[in-house]
Amino acid sequence: MTDPRVAGAGVTTFGSYPERTGRDLFAEAGLEALDQSGVPAADVEALYYGNFMGELAEHQGHQGPLMAEMVGVDAPATRYEAACASAGAAIRSAVQAIRSGEADVVMVGGAERMTNIGTAGATDALSIAADDLYEIRAGMTFPGAYALMARSYFEEYGGSREDLAHVAVKNHEHALVNDHAQLQKEISVADALEAPMVAEPLGLYDACPITDGAAAAIVTSEAYAAEHDLDAPVRISGTGQGGDNLALQDRAHYAQTPAADKAAREAYDDAGIGADAVDVAEVHDCFTIAEVLALESLALFERGEAITAARDGTTTRHGELPVNLSGGLKAKGHPVGATGVAQLATIAWVLDGSHPRADAVPDATVGVAHNAGGTVASTTVHVLEVGE
Amino acid sequence: MTDPRVAGAGVTTFGSYPERTGRDLFAEAGLEALDQSGVPAADVEALYYGNFMGELAEHQGHQGPLMAEMVGVDAPATRYEAACASAGAAIRSAVQAIRSGEADVVMVGGAERMTNIGTAGATDALSIAADDLYEIRAGMTFPGAYALMARSYFEEYGGSREDLAHVAVKNHEHALVNDHAQLQKEISVADALEAPMVAEPLGLYDACPITDGAAAAIVTSEAYAAEHDLDAPVRISGTGQGGDNLALQDRAHYAQTPAADKAAREAYDDAGIGADAVDVAEVHDCFTIAEVLALESLALFERGEAITAARDGTTTRHGELPVNLSGGLKAKGHPVGATGVAQLATIAWVLDGSHPRADAVPDATVGVAHNAGGTVASTTVHVLEVGE
Repeated sequence: MTDPRVAGAGVTTFGSYPERTGRDLFAEAGLEALDQSGVPAADVEALYYGNFMGELAEHQGHQGPLMAEMVGVDAPATRYEAACASAGAAIRSAVQAIRSGEADVVMVGGAERMTNIGTAGATDALSIAADDLYEIRAGMTFPGAYALMARSYFEEYGGSREDLAHVAVKNHEHALVNDHAQLQKEISVADALEAPMVAEPLGLYDACPITDGAAAAIVTSEAYAAEHDLDAPVRISGTGQGGDNLALQDRAHYAQTPAADKAAREAYDDAGIGADAVDVAEVHDCFTIAEVLALESLALFERGEAITAARDGTTTRHGELPVNLSGGLKAKGHPVGATGVAQLATIAWVLDGSHPRADAVPDATVGVAHNAGGTVASTTVHVLEVGE
Repeated sequence: MTDPRVAGAGVTTFGSYPERTGRDLFAEAGLEALDQSGVPAADVEALYYGNFMGELAEHQGHQGPLMAEMVGVDAPATRYEAACASAGAAIRSAVQAIRSGEADVVMVGGAERMTNIGTAGATDALSIAADDLYEIRAGMTFPGAYALMARSYFEEYGGSREDLAHVAVKNHEHALVNDHAQLQKEISVADALEAPMVAEPLGLYDACPITDGAAAAIVTSEAYAAEHDLDAPVRISGTGQGGDNLALQDRAHYAQTPAADKAAREAYDDAGIGADAVDVAEVHDCFTIAEVLALESLALFERGEAITAARDGTTTRHGELPVNLSGGLKAKGHPVGATGVAQLATIAWVLDGSHPRADAVPDATVGVAHNAGGTVASTTVHVLEVGE
């Protein structure tokens, strides 16, 4: 069993494109991934595709075969849905297919069209990632849920709105050179602190935007990459997934995300590495507090210590462990079903040196991508490596 | 690599239960599967779950972790969506997980709640399995699409409404002893021919009903089954999946379903059998014509010959190759996301002798399950075997 290779990836510019269909977005990303990889569409043996709210935003289910057709792939295609971790779940099956020898070349991707249904429509559609009976009908929203998690964290471990503001400032700064990012706009700590409150203690700059976009990657066996002389130095060496009760109220703890702990442990074990080997990370910062929780679940920081990581510079591009060099969901944007593969693409491009922020970690050999669904009831973690 | 074992399965009674939530339905099926298998919930390492219209029928996405919680399974859970083949797609990942050694015990299942949104609501929700832009907005419905396929078949190969009526009569008769079936009602050819027309040439009895229900199965490695002395004689020896263009208009042929041809070939090759080895089949008869198309794609009949198979008795319970002993989608009912696993359960129960129609094929050793999505843009085929 050898590690699957990332042979190429494509990501649309993330943003607000209410006039573009999901299929249009995915075609751009998928064709770019094929082009970048040099792999002909005819060689692709399966499409693993993530989408979250197509039923509500586009009145379109059964998107697997639709998206395969859009990129000229005549192969079985399945849609994965695990809320915001939909693409991460798709990646796991792609990895499994290559590892088991079932396929030599697959496409993994995702797309989401969100802005066409407006902010209220998108907020409603996002809410179905939580428990409709016991959370949504009681008035919970996702900003509200993450606000509860932030309050719980502050109470248990300390921390402040200003600490969270530094996460937002960092991710906005990282995105400045990322032409695929939705928000290429520098902000200050004061901007974040003075922005309108969304759900105390989370303000406008603590939340990611609503985004249209797509991402795709070509994943091949090592043998196929060698045989076809592909430029595919980055391999997926570890995969993990964890689950938790869907409703926040059914959890033992609001300031920890055990599903991510499990996913990380499994991915590290699978890759045969420890957390200390990780040089760079893309984590699921749908809210600033989510980045903090992710870094602790990934064991990159002790419990209670990631809250100051952006503020003290550790996770900035100048720091020891840069996090979300893409700008993260916060500034790059969060087209839900595409996010997991966009993270994978970012890490691959950072490790092979082609990402505009790759110079932050010129010697990086190990990167990790953390994709979370709902209030972290679903999490996938993937470890990517370059070099021997 | 050894074949995964079906250690137990559970299926709710299919029918109209508008007051029952999807989670309630799945809990019944999942707990029954655990109980029948004797496997403790704590041993289950993953849930692969099929659901099609939860967003529209229950305002509930992200059902994977929700359903895991409902059956007491603390493990990663992912929802698969491939329209009416959602559960079939989930089975493929379950098989892959066991075969690759990634897991020793998994649960696979699906659920659908449909009747609570009424016939118009369910018809609208079902329509998202087709191409919203180019089919649904142009006025296409699923009865209309299958009517086109039936007309095309009649034109190309011959056949009549009376031939199709025999498919309905057969499946209704098969369901008479199936207490899980939605329609336990004998019908005559005259009843079918005189029923209201839905979309010429398909009448009311050519279509499956709208159904609430759930199904689940426990799938284990051979080693786990042996070690725990499970009564699990039936193994999943072959899996295949095929895809096609989503919109009917983009197909070369309306009277053939090449996605199913591909899925069948792959599954037979995987199992190392030919179509002639098949003793019994459950196929996706969402409309009577769909059963005919399925049997030809499965290579159980030559092109143009399956149309008379029910009429001449070949596929009845007294015939050479009984098809849809459960009653099929036609009479058992079709809770979309559950159907693929309900078919798997039926074949397992027929092969181990516990199904009420197992006496039709007392010596059967090979069964096949065919699950199709949309107008057969997605198809999965699984081969099950018992004995050496």
